[in-house]
Amino acid sequence: LLGFGTVGSSVAEILCSNHFPNLQLVCIFNRNVARKRQLWVPAGVRWTEDIHEVIASDADIVVEVLGGLEPTADWIELMLRAGKSVVTANKHLIATRGRELAKLAQAEGRRLEYGASVAGGVPVLNAVSAGLAGEALLRLQGVLNGTCNYILSNMDASGMPFDKALARAQELGFAEADPSDDIHGIDARCKLAILAHTGFGLHVEPEQIEARSIVGIAAEDFQQARKRGRTIRQVSMAERTAGGLRAVVQPAMVRANSSVGQVRDNQNVLVTTGHWGGETTFAGRGAGGGPTAVAVVSDLLAIARHQALGGARADSAAEVQCDFHFHHYLRAEVADAKDSALLEVTLREAGLDIQESKTSRKRKKGKSATTRVLLLGPSTTAKVEEALSAWGSQCPRCVLPLID
Amino acid sequence: LLGFGTVGSSVAEILCSNHFPNLQLVCIFNRNVARKRQLWVPAGVRWTEDIHEVIASDADIVVEVLGGLEPTADWIELMLRAGKSVVTANKHLIATRGRELAKLAQAEGRRLEYGASVAGGVPVLNAVSAGLAGEALLRLQGVLNGTCNYILSNMDASGMPFDKALARAQELGFAEADPSDDIHGIDARCKLAILAHTGFGLHVEPEQIEARSIVGIAAEDFQQARKRGRTIRQVSMAERTAGGLRAVVQPAMVRANSSVGQVRDNQNVLVTTGHWGGETTFAGRGAGGGPTAVAVVSDLLAIARHQALGGARADSAAEVQCDFHFHHYLRAEVADAKDSALLEVTLREAGLDIQESKTSRKRKKGKSATTRVLLLGPSTTAKVEEALSAWGSQCPRCVLPLID
Repeated sequence: LLGFGTVGSSVAEILCSNHFPNLQLVCIFNRNVARKRQLWVPAGVRWTEDIHEVIASDADIVVEVLGGLEPTADWIELMLRAGKSVVTANKHLIATRGRELAKLAQAEGRRLEYGASVAGGVPVLNAVSAGLAGEALLRLQGVLNGTCNYILSNMDASGMPFDKALARAQELGFAEADPSDDIHGIDARCKLAILAHTGFGLHVEPEQIEARSIVGIAAEDFQQARKRGRTIRQVSMAERTAGGLRAVVQPAMVRANSSVGQVRDNQNVLVTTGHWGGETTFAGRGAGGGPTAVAVVSDLLAIARHQALGGARADSAAEVQCDFHFHHYLRAEVADAKDSALLEVTLREAGLDIQESKTSRKRKKGKSATTRVLLLGPSTTAKVEEALSAWGSQCPRCVLPLID
Repeated sequence: LLGFGTVGSSVAEILCSNHFPNLQLVCIFNRNVARKRQLWVPAGVRWTEDIHEVIASDADIVVEVLGGLEPTADWIELMLRAGKSVVTANKHLIATRGRELAKLAQAEGRRLEYGASVAGGVPVLNAVSAGLAGEALLRLQGVLNGTCNYILSNMDASGMPFDKALARAQELGFAEADPSDDIHGIDARCKLAILAHTGFGLHVEPEQIEARSIVGIAAEDFQQARKRGRTIRQVSMAERTAGGLRAVVQPAMVRANSSVGQVRDNQNVLVTTGHWGGETTFAGRGAGGGPTAVAVVSDLLAIARHQALGGARADSAAEVQCDFHFHHYLRAEVADAKDSALLEVTLREAGLDIQESKTSRKRKKGKSATTRVLLLGPSTTAKVEEALSAWGSQCPRCVLPLID
């Protein structure tokens, strides 16, 4: 077991619980073992700070819950070359180095499993690779980042501003000190890349998927969403195209009564759409020690039973497009009447169709602030963003596609 | 392929779609082949009305979507003895004969898979046996019968009476001409028995599980449910006990905003509760040709890939209790004031705690009808039913546990 943090100690707890007698914990690797050592771990388990002791151990399978890319990727390579199978919960590693590591595992006759890397305790990778193996998947859509969902569903429920919701998520351990990877969609697009590979058999680099930040969403955007029977979520979506894949991670206005709109707190959800079976929904705890550990142990059992999991579909490099067409909600503060008129002209010149328009004035910090709320006809989000750049104003704005 | 009805023809369609080149349809068995034959089935596929032709064929795997217990069970036995693996969607057969057939399959070195037997297109058996293999499951709760859910969710949405909702379900093909197995919970308890075996490793006979009918639920019960923020669903639930299992299938008042309360039309949902990972929800199309066929083909692929599926947990015969304790909603029509007083006395004598009570009078078909609506403190449903028997009135009544 590489790593004895939140997930690692939960994995150890399950392995030491006697629920799975055919799995035996033999060695725990972590920095500062003296501080980490727990009395409930059986005396026979070796604790070490030296990765070479793990390589030299008689463990058949190595569980990697250290996180990070370096030196983790090198260590996994060493483990595979030493004849050990590997189970990892590391989405960044699998999304960026998974292909080569999977090839190495195959060449060595070993297994590399990563069921815990997407949606933690919700077995979506297993569902997509085995349970829905007989399906021609058309579309994957969901909420894959618990931090963003915690922030957004709390803004929704309490009306609190973004900064406060983020601070609260950090206090409660739902957001890290540096939340950039979560709030800018980097974490979710790694997961979407892994899902797309498992579900469509297409190799996708995370960087091929557009990711938009949830920064800039204000309490009033939730009020606007509510007027439309909607709420705001960070949505990850990928769909099969003739040439490959269309995929994006972005905040969006979704129907309040949809599966995605109903996900609360740090939960995850995935909705798959198949050609023959239609929509299937998977929801639950996407992160945390317990749920992630369950996914890790399920992978361990699959290897112990010689149960094939991944690699279900053929693997080819994908052309990835990100040009989904949606209606857009646009909120923009404008400096004055001229600025406001210029916004409208710029949007129209970009070929965008203004279907609704409201202007409201409020006093904010002693100054009069004018806010435009517009509903734009179908276009890509990038097109709206380009028009806003051309407009040139530095005032706050928020662009959200309306996703059904 | 045994059976070319709704599911069988969908399975054939997927197998003939070139999506899965390692699966080849070789033979279709059905009565009255002349009438069934389809032009889109490749010429090389043999059509037959003789089961012995299937046994003698070179098929490696037989898909059984005929339904029924006899002669289907005998035929499956013949197939296994002839060295063929079997995939079936037949929940009655698996729930009642699954154990012996699984042993036979093992003895013959063949496979018996039945992923389509519970919740059709929603891969719940796969999730419970593989995706959540590393979990200590405590509880399974869900809506497993699409017919009941179609009837109840339509009564809910439109206010129509039971008979009309049933007739409409029959018109649309969501209920059979004889809907007894569905509406009395017989179908759902077969599925719950299979789920309990897969999830808890306990062998359960369907008859060990109490099943209560949805007959007797009236439009006004939905109004009463709505007042409490609830709706009515046929709920299947099973939980681990120290000695074995507690399981029941019954209509219940559930929270309108819960996963179970939000299932519409003929959809299915399963909520698993695990010791380490908490709640996970699976929802989608539980029946119909396409979704069921996807589950069948997923099983075919698992066999083709030598992928172990079932048998994950140890198998032992279970003690099954059915004595869940819940608050109960009771609606009873009473003949007169004496009858009403007698009801109250009888309930109190049975030790039942009357927590709320309302009496309303209406004219029904020219006669004055008095209805009592009571909320009873925690007890088993059986205890409430016994008290109603002791009361002796033949007037219509409806008892529903309130499930969270």
